[in-house]
Amino acid sequence: MTSTDKERIMDMKSAAKKAKEASWILAESSSAEKNSALMRISAALELRINEIISANEIDLDRSAKEGISKPILKRLAFGEQKIREIIEGIQSLVSLADPVGKTLMATELDKGLDLYRVSCPIGVIGIIFESRPDALVQISTLCLKSGNTVLLKGGSEARETNKILAEIIEEAVKGHSIPDGWIHLVETRDEVKTMLELESHIDLIIPRGSNEFVRYIMDHSHIPVMGHADGICHVFVDQTADVEMAVSIAVDSKTQYVAVCNAAESLLVHEKISKEFLPKLKEAMDKKNVTLRGCDRTRNIINAEIATDADWKTEYLDYILSIKIVDSLDEAIEHINTYGSHHTDAIVSGDESSAQRFMNRVDSGGVYWNCSTRFADGFKYGLGAEVGVSTSKIHARGPVGLEGLVTYKYKLIGNGNIAADYAEKRKTFTHIRKV
Amino acid sequence: MTSTDKERIMDMKSAAKKAKEASWILAESSSAEKNSALMRISAALELRINEIISANEIDLDRSAKEGISKPILKRLAFGEQKIREIIEGIQSLVSLADPVGKTLMATELDKGLDLYRVSCPIGVIGIIFESRPDALVQISTLCLKSGNTVLLKGGSEARETNKILAEIIEEAVKGHSIPDGWIHLVETRDEVKTMLELESHIDLIIPRGSNEFVRYIMDHSHIPVMGHADGICHVFVDQTADVEMAVSIAVDSKTQYVAVCNAAESLLVHEKISKEFLPKLKEAMDKKNVTLRGCDRTRNIINAEIATDADWKTEYLDYILSIKIVDSLDEAIEHINTYGSHHTDAIVSGDESSAQRFMNRVDSGGVYWNCSTRFADGFKYGLGAEVGVSTSKIHARGPVGLEGLVTYKYKLIGNGNIAADYAEKRKTFTHIRKV
Repeated sequence: MTSTDKERIMDMKSAAKKAKEASWILAESSSAEKNSALMRISAALELRINEIISANEIDLDRSAKEGISKPILKRLAFGEQKIREIIEGIQSLVSLADPVGKTLMATELDKGLDLYRVSCPIGVIGIIFESRPDALVQISTLCLKSGNTVLLKGGSEARETNKILAEIIEEAVKGHSIPDGWIHLVETRDEVKTMLELESHIDLIIPRGSNEFVRYIMDHSHIPVMGHADGICHVFVDQTADVEMAVSIAVDSKTQYVAVCNAAESLLVHEKISKEFLPKLKEAMDKKNVTLRGCDRTRNIINAEIATDADWKTEYLDYILSIKIVDSLDEAIEHINTYGSHHTDAIVSGDESSAQRFMNRVDSGGVYWNCSTRFADGFKYGLGAEVGVSTSKIHARGPVGLEGLVTYKYKLIGNGNIAADYAEKRKTFTHIRKV
Repeated sequence: MTSTDKERIMDMKSAAKKAKEASWILAESSSAEKNSALMRISAALELRINEIISANEIDLDRSAKEGISKPILKRLAFGEQKIREIIEGIQSLVSLADPVGKTLMATELDKGLDLYRVSCPIGVIGIIFESRPDALVQISTLCLKSGNTVLLKGGSEARETNKILAEIIEEAVKGHSIPDGWIHLVETRDEVKTMLELESHIDLIIPRGSNEFVRYIMDHSHIPVMGHADGICHVFVDQTADVEMAVSIAVDSKTQYVAVCNAAESLLVHEKISKEFLPKLKEAMDKKNVTLRGCDRTRNIINAEIATDADWKTEYLDYILSIKIVDSLDEAIEHINTYGSHHTDAIVSGDESSAQRFMNRVDSGGVYWNCSTRFADGFKYGLGAEVGVSTSKIHARGPVGLEGLVTYKYKLIGNGNIAADYAEKRKTFTHIRKV
C-alpha cells in the first residue's frame, strides 16, 4: 500500500466520521430546508450541464479505448437528454411527502406521560453502485430528502462524471443549512474495504451490482446490507389459467428486458394444463429466440434442452427459460420457496382461492396474480425513484423508495415521571392509544 | 464431537428445515386458528401445572448444588404464581390485534392493476435467551400470534423446566391446524453454532443475554440479529431543569433496578446548573449507596471517584454512576451519540426547544423529556409482552412486541397486465394511492 493509499483510507475514515456527525444535524432539518437544497441542486446541474457532458466524454473515450462492452458504454453515456430527465426527477422528488417526522404511533401511558413513535432517518448510508452516473444523482437526492448522509462509490468507468456530479451537488448546498460532509465520494476499492469495517459510523450499506459483488459485500461486513444478490423470478401457470393470458405474461416476464433482476428465469406449469399450454408457449418463445430448458415431462410435450438441478437456481439474465411441470399448487409453492430468490413471483390462475394461497405462502417481496414480474420497480409502484430492490425480510422489501430510507425512534414526554411510582403501585398506566 | 453430538446437529438442521416449511403454512393461518391455539396452550399449562413445578424443582435443586448465585436462582424459580401470571399473559395476547395481513399501502397502478403492501410474518425466528423459563412461554406465544415459527435455546440451568414447557406447548396445538414443527427446543451450545450458519432456514436471530454473548452472536452470523448488546443510558440535566425533578429522575433512572439495560449509567449536567444540582444529587445518591465517578470539574464541586474515558463507555449494571459537566446542549448530544449505545437517553429541561433538539438529534431508540429512562419496556409502552429491546436502526427499534415480528410483502393483482404495454406507451400508470 502506497502512502497515498494510506492517506485515502485516513480520509475515508474521517469522511465517515464527519458524515456521522452531519447525520445528527440533518436528522433535524425541516422539509423546507431539504426541498430548497434539492432545488439548488437541480439548478446547479442545469447551469453546469456542459461540464458534466465534457467529463462524461472523457469517461466514454477512455472506456471505448479500454474495449469496454457496448451495453456498458450505453449505460455510462450521460448526455443532455438523460441529464434533463434526472433534473426533472429531482423536481418531482421535491413534491413527494417528507418521510421524516411522521407520527407512526402515539400512546398516552398516563396523564402527562405521552409516548410517540416517530419516523426518523437511518443515519449514514453507504452506497456502492454500478456504471450509470444517473444513479449517483438519484441516490444522493433520495438520501437528502430522507435526511440521511451518504457515502457513494460509483463504477470506475464513470469516475470523471461521478467526480463532477458529486462536486456540483456538494457545492450547490454548501452554507445553506445542510450540514457539511453530508455527501462524500469514495474513489478506490481499498476505501470500500475500509467502508465495510466502519460499523460505528455507517448504519446501512446498499450494494447495487453483480450477484458475486453483492454476496461479497454481504459476507464481509457486519453493517446491515439492504439489496438483492439474485433475482430468480418465477411464473406459475395454474390449471385454471387463461392460456392466452399465461403465454403473454410469460413472454413479457422473460423477454421485455432480459438483463434485469425482475425478469422471469423459470416457468412452472400445472400438469393438467401443460399439454395445451406448452406448445403455445414454445411458439411464442421461438419468435423471441428464447432457448427453453425443460424437465423430462416438459420434453415429452415440446422440444427443449435438458434442464438440470442447477437450472432451477440460475439467474440467466439472458434469452433462456427453464420449465418444469408440477402436479399441484403446493408443489409449485415449495419449488419457488426452495429454489427462488424471494424477489418476485407470479401465478396465472382463474381461481381466486389458489391465487390467495400462492400469494400468502410464497415467501417473496412481490407476489403477483395475473400480471408480469416486470412490474417490480419503484417507478412502476409509484414510489418515485428507488435506491434498489430488497430481498431481505428485515426492514424493507421489494422496491425501496423514500419510506425504506427511514426508521423510527420512540419519544417519551413527561413531567418528572419516574418508574418507581408505577412499580410501587402509587400510579397505574392508562395506555390510551391515540394514533 | 461424539456421534450423539453429530446426531443432534443433524436433528438441528432438519428441525430448522421443518420450521422453514411450517412457516409457509403458518403465514396463512387465520387469527381465529392462532387464537384458538393460544387458548389451548394456556389450558394445557394450567392442566399440567404440577409437572412444570416438579421439573423446575429439579432445576433449582441441581443449580443450588452447583453453587449458582442467588439472583440467578430467583430468576430460575417458576412457581405456581409465576405460572399463573404467564397464563394470564397468554390470554391477554389473544385479545391483541393480529399484526399479520394488515394492508399498509394500496395503490391502483392502472385500472384493473392493484398493488397492496401487506404485513406478513418474518418466517423462522431463532431465539437464544437467559435463565428465566417464563421467557420461553412468552416468546413462543408471541411468535405464534405473529405467524412465525421458532427455534428456542434457553439457559442450561433451566433445562428440565424448558423441556416440559416446550413439550406442553407443542402437544397442546398438535393436529389443530397449526403446522407441525413450528416450535423446536435447541438443547446444546454446539447446536447454537449450527443455528448461526443456517442462513437459508432462519430469518432472524434474537439473542437475550450478557453483552459478550450478544456480541459473539452478532459477529458470528450472517443472519440478521435483532437486540442489544450494551445499554448505556444517559440522563442530561439541562441548565433550565427543575432541580428537584432532575434529582428524582436521576435517582429513579439509576437505582430503581440497577441490573437492567434501561438503567442510567452516565449523568451529564450543564455547567450553568452544576453547582446547584450536584450537591443535591450527591445527597440523594448517598442515601441509595451509589458510588459516583466524576470528571475533574465535577470533583471540584462534590466528592467523587475519578472517572476515566473508559467510564463513559461502561455499562455498570450496578450502584455506580459516572458524571460529566458539559458546556452546552450540543456537547451533551455529541457525548451521548459518541459514547452511548443508542438505547434510551433522557433530558431534564424546562425549555421546549432544547428538549426538541435533544430528541431530534440524539440517535437512540428512545429519547425522553422529563422522565426516567426506566420506562423503556414493552409492557410499560403498552405493547403487551416484548421479545427484547432493539438498538438496531434497521427494522425495529426500542422494545419489540408483535409489530416488530412482522415484515411486509407486495401483492400485485392484475388481469393479464404486461410491462411492455407501459414501456411502449400503449397504456399509462394511474398511480392512485388508496391506502
